[in-house]
Amino acid sequence: MDAAPTEDWAERVRDSFARQPAMALIGARLGALAPGAVEIELPVEKRLAQQHGYVHGGVVAMIADSAAGYSAYSVVPASASVLTVEYKINFLAPAAGRLLRAHGRVLKPGRTLVIVKVDVLSEGDGEPRLCATMLQTVMVMHGRSDEPRGPDHVATGTRA
Amino acid sequence: MDAAPTEDWAERVRDSFARQPAMALIGARLGALAPGAVEIELPVEKRLAQQHGYVHGGVVAMIADSAAGYSAYSVVPASASVLTVEYKINFLAPAAGRLLRAHGRVLKPGRTLVIVKVDVLSEGDGEPRLCATMLQTVMVMHGRSDEPRGPDHVATGTRA
Amino acid sequence: MDAAPTEDWAERVRDSFARQPAMALIGARLGALAPGAVEIELPVEKRLAQQHGYVHGGVVAMIADSAAGYSAYSVVPASASVLTVEYKINFLAPAAGRLLRAHGRVLKPGRTLVIVKVDVLSEGDGEPRLCATMLQTVMVMHGRSDEPRGPDHVATGTRA
Amino acid sequence: MDAAPTEDWAERVRDSFARQPAMALIGARLGALAPGAVEIELPVEKRLAQQHGYVHGGVVAMIADSAAGYSAYSVVPASASVLTVEYKINFLAPAAGRLLRAHGRVLKPGRTLVIVKVDVLSEGDGEPRLCATMLQTVMVMHGRSDEPRGPDHVATGTRA
Repeated sequence: MDAAPTEDWAERVRDSFARQPAMALIGARLGALAPGAVEIELPVEKRLAQQHGYVHGGVVAMIADSAAGYSAYSVVPASASVLTVEYKINFLAPAAGRLLRAHGRVLKPGRTLVIVKVDVLSEGDGEPRLCATMLQTVMVMHGRSDEPRGPDHVATGTRA
Repeated sequence: MDAAPTEDWAERVRDSFARQPAMALIGARLGALAPGAVEIELPVEKRLAQQHGYVHGGVVAMIADSAAGYSAYSVVPASASVLTVEYKINFLAPAAGRLLRAHGRVLKPGRTLVIVKVDVLSEGDGEPRLCATMLQTVMVMHGRSDEPRGPDHVATGTRA
Repeated sequence: MDAAPTEDWAERVRDSFARQPAMALIGARLGALAPGAVEIELPVEKRLAQQHGYVHGGVVAMIADSAAGYSAYSVVPASASVLTVEYKINFLAPAAGRLLRAHGRVLKPGRTLVIVKVDVLSEGDGEPRLCATMLQTVMVMHGRSDEPRGPDHVATGTRA
Repeated sequence: MDAAPTEDWAERVRDSFARQPAMALIGARLGALAPGAVEIELPVEKRLAQQHGYVHGGVVAMIADSAAGYSAYSVVPASASVLTVEYKINFLAPAAGRLLRAHGRVLKPGRTLVIVKVDVLSEGDGEPRLCATMLQTVMVMHGRSDEPRGPDHVATGTRA
């Protein structure tokens, strides 16, 4: 029995995202939303840069991680939350341009585990360019949605 | 021909680390240093937390990434810099306590690629506890050390 | 400067594949070939199964690894060979059906490193089904093509 | 509540291993056993080699995968089986020598997920040499032990 989105999935994603201080800190926002496919947008700003003017890799990983978590969160029951078990990320090109967009997409919406891929593209300099790609395993925590928290708390560790 | 530390490896690591705004932003500092084994320490602060008071997973990944990059950087020639190609991270337990310590260790100091493992432990609540573990592939950029930059710029992408 | 296919890329791929005893052992063969996108097909046979009749995960990983290696090999100079640095694989569904098809695709054809993704689909039971997905980092060994060997020897270790 | 070994864990590991045709095919056998730490040994033979006389990378991954699965299996209840969710492997040196030994070790024995690391060493040419290292996520399938199967069926995919 695979996970499937609830009626209010988009509202739950927006509510949870609004409670993420870390996303606000770096200026990230939600982009296009579909069940199992959540985008995070990040306007490129100087304060996010490393020494060469590219966005810091840690920041690229943060928006990819978040896009993965919310893509998974969009297909779990209202009574569940999600937790990042692990991910792998390959960095393919410098993260520049005007905007970074992390496209999450659920590959396997399992009851206990949701497998998600994320592509991060940079936009604003001609063709969008693939900067990074991630494969992530997300755990569904059934019966743990009552607290005001979202998928981003996720990345702090599995209590599996 | 494998990489080997230069005489001034520790100075180069300290110089480079001091130029990392992102590390300063989160309050991270260098810990114990040995050739091929660099520690990053992070005092746990409220502003780094997600909703449950644990340190945000993105921040855990940032110090692990940095410990990996500097562990590699400590064994490359003075004329080289390093670049994160990819990593995988597993989150094992909530990142709490008073201090997080990311222990990097070079597994394979190749001429072109350096493979590094990192364990992140939380300290301050009894026994140190393993929070996360990372395997990272780092590329050595020979002949590219002249610019004032360090291994952290690394994570923005390989120009391989 | 990125890698680009030579004129005889397809011939070199076929020659190299023909020298892989391990692929012959499991009955794998080349499928559709394009520069940077090589498919490996594997007819599902009883002797490749584990206890439940599904194809053994190790065998699934072998064809994915091979599809990644040859996708990379198809875009490197004739004077180069390739070596698997590392990969991550997620298993998404039991590998059943009549045929497994591993679709490799180069994401980043760097001069030194080629990043490849692979999807393994099972065919023969209605819609093809995604069984596994892999992200792989391949190293290009310039000036080392003279020996009669192919990309599969690859996975035994980087001499980076 | 974490996983813990049953009294008959070693017997269950041996029974399950004996039912793995794939391990017999390549000549792999169990080495030292402890709860949460299972070794797989593989005598190096010509038929396992690729073109240069090193053991094929796919075979290295198979014994690492198996060491991970049995390390996890040794700490789950008798009524449970295990399934490989995903792994990452880095190849560090050619797999040569007389014997390969895959040392599995459980890092996190969760109730639902068990996280395992594996180091593969080659022995017989002086000091043992680290050939490959793996991080693996294993899922515990509670209430599914009645069938005669073992952890190796594991790698064919999660039914999470």
